[in-house]
Amino acid sequence: MRTHRIITIVGGGLVGSLCAIMLGNRGYTVHVFDRRRDVRTYGGERGRSINLALSHRGVRALQEAGISAQIDTIGVPMRGRMIHYTDGSMVFQPYGKDGEAIYSVSRAALNQLLLNAAEQHPHVHLHFEECCCDVDVATARALFTRADGSTHSVSADCVIGADGAYSVVRGVMQKYGRFNYEQHYLEHGYKELTIPSSPNGTWVLEPNALHIWPRGRYMFIALPNVDGSFTCTLFLPFESTRDDEPSFEDLHSAESIHNFFCQAFPDVVQYMPHFVEEFIAHPTSTLITIRCTPWFYQDRVMLIGDAAHAIVPFYGQGMNAGFEDCRIFSELLAQYHDNWLQALREYHTQRKPNADAIAHLAMQNFVEMSERVADPMFLLRKRIEQHCHTLYPHAFIPVYSMVTFSHIPYVEALQEMERQEAVLNRIMCLERIKERWNTPEGEETIRSILRDAGYAV
Amino acid sequence: MRTHRIITIVGGGLVGSLCAIMLGNRGYTVHVFDRRRDVRTYGGERGRSINLALSHRGVRALQEAGISAQIDTIGVPMRGRMIHYTDGSMVFQPYGKDGEAIYSVSRAALNQLLLNAAEQHPHVHLHFEECCCDVDVATARALFTRADGSTHSVSADCVIGADGAYSVVRGVMQKYGRFNYEQHYLEHGYKELTIPSSPNGTWVLEPNALHIWPRGRYMFIALPNVDGSFTCTLFLPFESTRDDEPSFEDLHSAESIHNFFCQAFPDVVQYMPHFVEEFIAHPTSTLITIRCTPWFYQDRVMLIGDAAHAIVPFYGQGMNAGFEDCRIFSELLAQYHDNWLQALREYHTQRKPNADAIAHLAMQNFVEMSERVADPMFLLRKRIEQHCHTLYPHAFIPVYSMVTFSHIPYVEALQEMERQEAVLNRIMCLERIKERWNTPEGEETIRSILRDAGYAV
Repeated sequence: MRTHRIITIVGGGLVGSLCAIMLGNRGYTVHVFDRRRDVRTYGGERGRSINLALSHRGVRALQEAGISAQIDTIGVPMRGRMIHYTDGSMVFQPYGKDGEAIYSVSRAALNQLLLNAAEQHPHVHLHFEECCCDVDVATARALFTRADGSTHSVSADCVIGADGAYSVVRGVMQKYGRFNYEQHYLEHGYKELTIPSSPNGTWVLEPNALHIWPRGRYMFIALPNVDGSFTCTLFLPFESTRDDEPSFEDLHSAESIHNFFCQAFPDVVQYMPHFVEEFIAHPTSTLITIRCTPWFYQDRVMLIGDAAHAIVPFYGQGMNAGFEDCRIFSELLAQYHDNWLQALREYHTQRKPNADAIAHLAMQNFVEMSERVADPMFLLRKRIEQHCHTLYPHAFIPVYSMVTFSHIPYVEALQEMERQEAVLNRIMCLERIKERWNTPEGEETIRSILRDAGYAV
Repeated sequence: MRTHRIITIVGGGLVGSLCAIMLGNRGYTVHVFDRRRDVRTYGGERGRSINLALSHRGVRALQEAGISAQIDTIGVPMRGRMIHYTDGSMVFQPYGKDGEAIYSVSRAALNQLLLNAAEQHPHVHLHFEECCCDVDVATARALFTRADGSTHSVSADCVIGADGAYSVVRGVMQKYGRFNYEQHYLEHGYKELTIPSSPNGTWVLEPNALHIWPRGRYMFIALPNVDGSFTCTLFLPFESTRDDEPSFEDLHSAESIHNFFCQAFPDVVQYMPHFVEEFIAHPTSTLITIRCTPWFYQDRVMLIGDAAHAIVPFYGQGMNAGFEDCRIFSELLAQYHDNWLQALREYHTQRKPNADAIAHLAMQNFVEMSERVADPMFLLRKRIEQHCHTLYPHAFIPVYSMVTFSHIPYVEALQEMERQEAVLNRIMCLERIKERWNTPEGEETIRSILRDAGYAV
């Protein structure tokens, strides 16, 4: 067993900085290198995924790193989905029970918080505007280019690639023998827009909700910010597959953008005075899923977060899964007395199937958000699902709650999905279910269906 | 429509040089750049996949390029599989009917033949030791590095990436938005060895066969060369998954290599006086499958052959599929009056599903070669399959023949596989099938089973 003392982390984003703090807490000397300028001095990129949903797994990891106290100041709790129909009507669908919430946080603010904590840590050292251009995987020596074009190499006991979906560290591993790799782009792209706060600085829509305008093959969402504004995202196919289907390809002029929004989201246009200008100014971004294996090379290189498993954003789990990687790896180091090779093997064995599972769940959830929530019967189904959970809180946990409000492995949530789908299909086929579901007689019928399916109710 | 005149081909291997000839034949000025030295001056790499099986699709493409006459001089016909059992006994299983054969050809000799033909072509220009390091996909300008380290750029109307499984051109496309990509390594590696010719220059094993020593999770094969030798390949897992399963990992000493061969392939050791030295000297190579999409960017960049769809070698179709790409693209250029964008779109639409199908078939065939052929009942099954084809030559074509002796799209062969599996499962379950299959009564029963499955017999 080699003794590890000095760790290089490539990427000072959310996962990289949290990982640095956790390793610092275990006594390692950690150097974090980021190709960008310090986000604390320039405020972060505009127009690209600046809002994130922080939920249980992420909060738990932050807590274990000792930095959860400040989260309230940068996040707005969202207790459910506010669904906006084309006729302007709205329905609120709670995410959990008893006001359970996910938190809308600003990527920049959370990153700043994490970088501050990392910087204050005596064992963690931050380096900005240092672009990783190569890694020698056998010796854990990484090569960085500075803004002036000069190059220098950094030696360590392990290089951790926390450098996101387009990871340079992973790119190096990809060229080594027997590294399996997949990148798949969604046919949809996304565009960020803003709903400003009202003149008196408050929210113009319900703040404690994730707003969705579900339109089948596309959707518009809005997440609240602490400053009273909302960050909105349009998810839309790049190209149309049918004549009547809108796509980014069609939205090439101010007029076409204006008309599309007025037709598809009439109730929200009034709140976005500059949406046409923003639409033209902001990039249309792609959505990628990345699967690869293995996530480590000996005890010299490892991948974590998006670098190992980038997923689509529809379950709000990308950051949470990355934070959970950090927590679990840190726990495994403790369990294996800082034997990195053993910890890395177990980390890969545990996390790889879970990463595949959440990738699948995230893809599935696009259909739920953009299409299924628009169906009133689906909302009834969700209410019944929640009711089952209230009646049998331990035996029946909705998949959404398993993913969002627990740290049950994603693999188990995915397995449970199929069983719950079957059960709820049966329940929804019951005669007059709309009237019966919360009567004593209806509850008894539902209970027998659950029991049939093997639930201990 | 842009008029294309000048084409850059990256890669002067088998597919690159054939593609150059075909485009030269259509009047294009073609520049072929290869990073290696001219294979005609140094004889090619030793120890890595130096033997190939040329079959119908490859021959047809070569014929259409006008260069088939010389193939007989570099290939040895193989009319079937010679299966070697552990007890030293052998069985010959024909590939087709009436002596239909695939050709064992030397990669270097075939490449030399193609480069000679390309060089003699007035419109084709060859450039060696020029390593493509970048492509501007918008302008079809490619950057090449020479051996002295100097770099120069080459302008053209289209850049064709014929640069194999580890394609640089594809690597450039991978970084552009929305390029889907997968690379998967087999758990098996391979090692090349040699059976030299006898002292009088003849073959020590039957020359007109592909020899297989099927051993379940691993196998050894031998392909004849025109000089009386055989090129052999051991396919073996890199690591053992069970204690009793051999792997490359275990073969780390002269003694372990020697013992393994004496135990697993006792009848062939006598013909390989230097196998231990060769085993140690030759690299252990990996086997990769690559899937990607799209294969083109506007009418400026396209991928062909292994660069677009590298597959495992177990169906002997890698080169044949690449040659078929060339033939079909050339035919599409004729059909669309040299409108490259239209031809490329149709090329992608036609070839992508066929590439996926042969990738799948090739993976399946490993199990057939390494495991199923060792079962005497499987050989009976193959004889019955062939008999069905003899009885109903148009209605029932074995999948192997569809792939190897026809140019029926691979997709159709894959679809047919399932139907034939079901039919042959039924036939093999017939009582006393071993005695009955070629009696008039047995043939009538088989006919009714075929008819049941929808065959027009």
